[in-house]
Amino acid sequence: MNEKIKRSIRWGMVGGGIGGFIGESHRMAARLDGKFNLVAGALSSDAERARESAAQCFISAERTYTDYREMAKAEAARPDGIEAVSIVTPNASHHAIASAFLDHGIAVICDKPLATSVQDGQDLVARAAKAQRLLGVTYNYSGYPMIRHARSLVAEGAVGALRLVQVEFALGWLAAPLEQEGVKQAWRTDPASAGPSGVVADIGTHAYHLLRFVTGLEIETLAADLATVVPGRKLEDNANILLRFKGGARGVLWASMVAAGETVGFRLRVYGETGHLAWDEAFPDQLHLRLLDGTDQTLHRGGKLSPAAKQATRLVSGLPEGFIEAFANLYGDYAEQITARRDKRPPDPASLLAPTGADGVDALAFVEAVLKSGLADGSWVALG
Amino acid sequence: MNEKIKRSIRWGMVGGGIGGFIGESHRMAARLDGKFNLVAGALSSDAERARESAAQCFISAERTYTDYREMAKAEAARPDGIEAVSIVTPNASHHAIASAFLDHGIAVICDKPLATSVQDGQDLVARAAKAQRLLGVTYNYSGYPMIRHARSLVAEGAVGALRLVQVEFALGWLAAPLEQEGVKQAWRTDPASAGPSGVVADIGTHAYHLLRFVTGLEIETLAADLATVVPGRKLEDNANILLRFKGGARGVLWASMVAAGETVGFRLRVYGETGHLAWDEAFPDQLHLRLLDGTDQTLHRGGKLSPAAKQATRLVSGLPEGFIEAFANLYGDYAEQITARRDKRPPDPASLLAPTGADGVDALAFVEAVLKSGLADGSWVALG
Amino acid sequence: MNEKIKRSIRWGMVGGGIGGFIGESHRMAARLDGKFNLVAGALSSDAERARESAAQCFISAERTYTDYREMAKAEAARPDGIEAVSIVTPNASHHAIASAFLDHGIAVICDKPLATSVQDGQDLVARAAKAQRLLGVTYNYSGYPMIRHARSLVAEGAVGALRLVQVEFALGWLAAPLEQEGVKQAWRTDPASAGPSGVVADIGTHAYHLLRFVTGLEIETLAADLATVVPGRKLEDNANILLRFKGGARGVLWASMVAAGETVGFRLRVYGETGHLAWDEAFPDQLHLRLLDGTDQTLHRGGKLSPAAKQATRLVSGLPEGFIEAFANLYGDYAEQITARRDKRPPDPASLLAPTGADGVDALAFVEAVLKSGLADGSWVALG
Amino acid sequence: MNEKIKRSIRWGMVGGGIGGFIGESHRMAARLDGKFNLVAGALSSDAERARESAAQCFISAERTYTDYREMAKAEAARPDGIEAVSIVTPNASHHAIASAFLDHGIAVICDKPLATSVQDGQDLVARAAKAQRLLGVTYNYSGYPMIRHARSLVAEGAVGALRLVQVEFALGWLAAPLEQEGVKQAWRTDPASAGPSGVVADIGTHAYHLLRFVTGLEIETLAADLATVVPGRKLEDNANILLRFKGGARGVLWASMVAAGETVGFRLRVYGETGHLAWDEAFPDQLHLRLLDGTDQTLHRGGKLSPAAKQATRLVSGLPEGFIEAFANLYGDYAEQITARRDKRPPDPASLLAPTGADGVDALAFVEAVLKSGLADGSWVALG
Repeated sequence: MNEKIKRSIRWGMVGGGIGGFIGESHRMAARLDGKFNLVAGALSSDAERARESAAQCFISAERTYTDYREMAKAEAARPDGIEAVSIVTPNASHHAIASAFLDHGIAVICDKPLATSVQDGQDLVARAAKAQRLLGVTYNYSGYPMIRHARSLVAEGAVGALRLVQVEFALGWLAAPLEQEGVKQAWRTDPASAGPSGVVADIGTHAYHLLRFVTGLEIETLAADLATVVPGRKLEDNANILLRFKGGARGVLWASMVAAGETVGFRLRVYGETGHLAWDEAFPDQLHLRLLDGTDQTLHRGGKLSPAAKQATRLVSGLPEGFIEAFANLYGDYAEQITARRDKRPPDPASLLAPTGADGVDALAFVEAVLKSGLADGSWVALG
Repeated sequence: MNEKIKRSIRWGMVGGGIGGFIGESHRMAARLDGKFNLVAGALSSDAERARESAAQCFISAERTYTDYREMAKAEAARPDGIEAVSIVTPNASHHAIASAFLDHGIAVICDKPLATSVQDGQDLVARAAKAQRLLGVTYNYSGYPMIRHARSLVAEGAVGALRLVQVEFALGWLAAPLEQEGVKQAWRTDPASAGPSGVVADIGTHAYHLLRFVTGLEIETLAADLATVVPGRKLEDNANILLRFKGGARGVLWASMVAAGETVGFRLRVYGETGHLAWDEAFPDQLHLRLLDGTDQTLHRGGKLSPAAKQATRLVSGLPEGFIEAFANLYGDYAEQITARRDKRPPDPASLLAPTGADGVDALAFVEAVLKSGLADGSWVALG
Repeated sequence: MNEKIKRSIRWGMVGGGIGGFIGESHRMAARLDGKFNLVAGALSSDAERARESAAQCFISAERTYTDYREMAKAEAARPDGIEAVSIVTPNASHHAIASAFLDHGIAVICDKPLATSVQDGQDLVARAAKAQRLLGVTYNYSGYPMIRHARSLVAEGAVGALRLVQVEFALGWLAAPLEQEGVKQAWRTDPASAGPSGVVADIGTHAYHLLRFVTGLEIETLAADLATVVPGRKLEDNANILLRFKGGARGVLWASMVAAGETVGFRLRVYGETGHLAWDEAFPDQLHLRLLDGTDQTLHRGGKLSPAAKQATRLVSGLPEGFIEAFANLYGDYAEQITARRDKRPPDPASLLAPTGADGVDALAFVEAVLKSGLADGSWVALG
Repeated sequence: MNEKIKRSIRWGMVGGGIGGFIGESHRMAARLDGKFNLVAGALSSDAERARESAAQCFISAERTYTDYREMAKAEAARPDGIEAVSIVTPNASHHAIASAFLDHGIAVICDKPLATSVQDGQDLVARAAKAQRLLGVTYNYSGYPMIRHARSLVAEGAVGALRLVQVEFALGWLAAPLEQEGVKQAWRTDPASAGPSGVVADIGTHAYHLLRFVTGLEIETLAADLATVVPGRKLEDNANILLRFKGGARGVLWASMVAAGETVGFRLRVYGETGHLAWDEAFPDQLHLRLLDGTDQTLHRGGKLSPAAKQATRLVSGLPEGFIEAFANLYGDYAEQITARRDKRPPDPASLLAPTGADGVDALAFVEAVLKSGLADGSWVALG
């Protein structure tokens, strides 16, 4: 896509030992377009697992670490040290790890949420600014071409001034008390790893970011009905949230880990004066445009789309793309930003669509407002 | 279906002049199974339109009326007078009309909502009890076979104890200010015809009844964010409502007249401990059952269904049924009740699924709670 | 729809005893719009079943018959005799029954196929012409509004000159040897009732009529691979047929009774130079229009459609219609033709879309060509 | 997936200059799992384009070639020479290029079809056997997890003994005479590049391989109606083909380049005694299983699938995978086979699902039979 990149980016990873899901999804996303070369990693704090994982990723023993601080220091000292690191550990560790790398001048691509408080998030943004390094936050659903096209359509007024938003991210895998059965991925329900919020921080912020990304709307106030559906769970696992946007639009955001039987469950609908757009992650290559005049169009990735959507597309219309390709679009954007800085040139403006620290902080502010409203039995709380 | 009916029911209608939609949909529903015979009508208060409409319905001139009071009186006096009347006028007139017929001992089938206040609704229930006559309220979506099957599945525990409900009835046809353009059907936005509520009374109560019908859950408290999206409109046209049910389940109900581009837009999802059921009126012959164990089944009308669903089915699996057939199931149930009373025998218990006055009052209580919460800026309000 | 009808049509039926499917589907179709009044019937050749069935249809004992000849004669002699009769018996009896009524001056609506040979079909057409009475043949799928809209779109060139047709009607219910288990409806596999063809006559002709109706294309030659998949079956139960149309277009028609698991399975796709139309009976209210330029539109019943499609529509867009409504459109067309003749006026030209004897003969010619090709191991055979 | 691989495979490519689609799709497939490292290439016969393309792929100038013979020789002579090469040139050049690399002991992964005649294909198989090197042929749709699951289900008898197959691969992009407008990808219609067959060789063989892969059925005879729909085109662009399988099953295969408006259009349905399986590439993560008893299940990638399907899966159920992931499964299988040979161990048996030279020859035999039948006006022709 971008012709200015001359060599791949030397890249490291913290967390993401083999067997886990998140690390491998970042690796696939980074590998797809060949712009990142994984050369260093602290893939696990368990030494044996770190070694085994690194070997499987073809990382040399010399650059296999078990401590992220050591890794940051050692890599910063090498002439061929990593230029960027991806952080794919539980939420509560993001701030410390990201700080270590940013402070050593290494670009950071951090899994969401950026941190567990607005304050920590703002601190990371400040450190990135000081270091003049990228701080990416992987709200990766914004990498779907049809989501980028939806954003363009809304901006062009394809459905008129916005009035209503319905967004939901509903999963069912935590409908059973997996954390009480020792399932590792269930750390999302443990405040020690996840921070003060469960489902809202975990996937509610994906929903929040997506609606912000597509609509540009800003929430003025919200009212949240939080529930802990599974007995004994420590964090909220279902959130029904009413939204009022600046300018008068209204919305509902539903985030759930306990919607038994849901697997994808990420759906966004945006209604304006003259029509609406609907997207469902189960069929990510499609975007539905229905207008008040009766028009019902299915728009396809690979078709006649906005430049932003086209640039995020690899295959012709009809050949399905998926989650990894969308994720890879973020990595492509980050690659462009990292390379541009390396080459001392301005990045392709299109690459700035990828979410960064500011988006991460914005999402954390949403989490805090939701928790505040939830504690106040669903009273309206102002955002920001 | 029911073999005890020896002759069709002599039937009348108030409202429903030709050209309108509601009256003809009742007539098609009543005709489909041949159990009602339309012999009298006050189809319009405009004499010329009443006459023309009646002629097109093959109603004799002698039994064509322009005043419902006159009709009730005259029909009650005839040896071959109508046994039942359907009322398909705007909401605000329901109470007076239904009273007139019930008081003359004529069964009433009333379009929803039953009245414009709980008090008026209760009064009608009392009159029907006194007259010992049927008072049906056409929450007709409960006539869909797959909705009746969903009800059976929930009752059998097919998805476990209920935890979450998502229901929406979103239409777009009033996204433009049609009432300011003189469109007759837009009376739903005029308090003089519609009563104190707009979208909540009009289709929100359909959504409410459907969730009650399928789940049996009772709302404990609700919090409603009501909006009047179209400038100059007199009643709310969008409602985002948080629900808390007795027993702890949570839900969201969305009702909208301004969801531009939506045409059907009636969707119900019910989540239990072990899975969920999903129904969408756009594909009414299907019901989706997805379980925590990964099972994803599409259940089809005409397949192996509960007795209640089978009894509501006319065609083999694969041949599509629709709105009229569902509506006709209510008329079939009412016919059974009317005929059983005529024959002095107990009605088929299955026919008692059809909504009656008590359901109508229940829905009015929901409307009142929603309006109360809306006026209090979305505070939680107890129901009932 | 048509304002010239002053009273309903006196109507009778031969075959269609209760418990069967076909008779009741005709009755529902006829009742839906209130234009036919069932007053006489020979619903079964079994006297007890005939009596019981007639009673359930509110037919008087006096006009309940067990012999169609007697019925034709008696009704023709009454001043209030039936004006039209529907014939819903197995194929092999159609010719004799239809002849009896036509010869007595009574209009005939005959289930498909019209007869079991082209010759018999032509004979009926001649008798109808002589009697100056309607001879309808219920290729009822042509009553779907979106099929009528597809016909209009093709005629307008919406997809350009036609090149390819793919049509299939695949059911699975006879994948098991039901006829060997005594299932009555399996008469379709018995030459004594069905005539010389199994699946081709039963549903293959529906597929044939639909493609003719929508495209107007004429088959020049065809090559048929017929199979009797179920051991011991007497007639073909699967047909894969290659089609070459006059003008050069090509096609495939697949008809099957043994496509296990299929329930609806009626799908039509028509490809022209610039795009295609696709319709699937499972979602009959939709028609998909996809163009070479990437346009992908879903057209909805109730939307902005051709006059022919609008006239065949009862409900607003979004409220689903189905099989019965489509069937009722044929009955509506026949009612208009019968009434126009009664009133000595020309019928509404739109009503002429409903299939008549000529279409029935055309379909029988298709069956004969298919059987001829099948016997010749799939050699190309000219049609007509 | 496979833990025995210690380092990535040194890999080259012939054809696939930037801007084209096929080369980049192979590169993405190979990169996704990080098992191939692209170090050499003759990406174009045009020197400037070859250089530019290689630079963008981070291939060193030293190992950038413009002649495949030179490349085969030079790489075979290097201690760090490529172990495998992918060939992504037009069909007519496959034989010569593949021969050159196999004869130098370099494994070959060849885009389909393997060659332009059965004889050439057999020659390549013989060369691979002699060289003891992999000869892969990228019938890549067999890499979809749900296709592999379908194969397992059929083998387990999930739908009973097979009776009917319906497969189609219909595209519309060549509905216009693009070759006459100088569009490069339209070489598929030019015998000089494509060989003696157009649509059948291009995508018909994909359909053929997929049905063979899933069902294991062998065609006994076939009858093909070939058409050249676009005036002036040199090769057939539409093929309607009747299939008779050994054992008695019947089928239809439709391949088209001129199905205007189709983009994906790859659909397979397999009917057995007790039910059927249906797959549509537009929704590749789903497989539909419908049984005679009314069961209708949607099976999802990531769910409880066969080992072969699980091994081909990267993401949890719900996160969509697509074309590249399926393609990458072939590359993963080939990597396992190449590495196993390198390590002198037997490959994981699961990796043997990936199509090789024998499958390529089988598909060419299909093409030859189709062309023979087509020339004989659709007479039945035996296969093999």
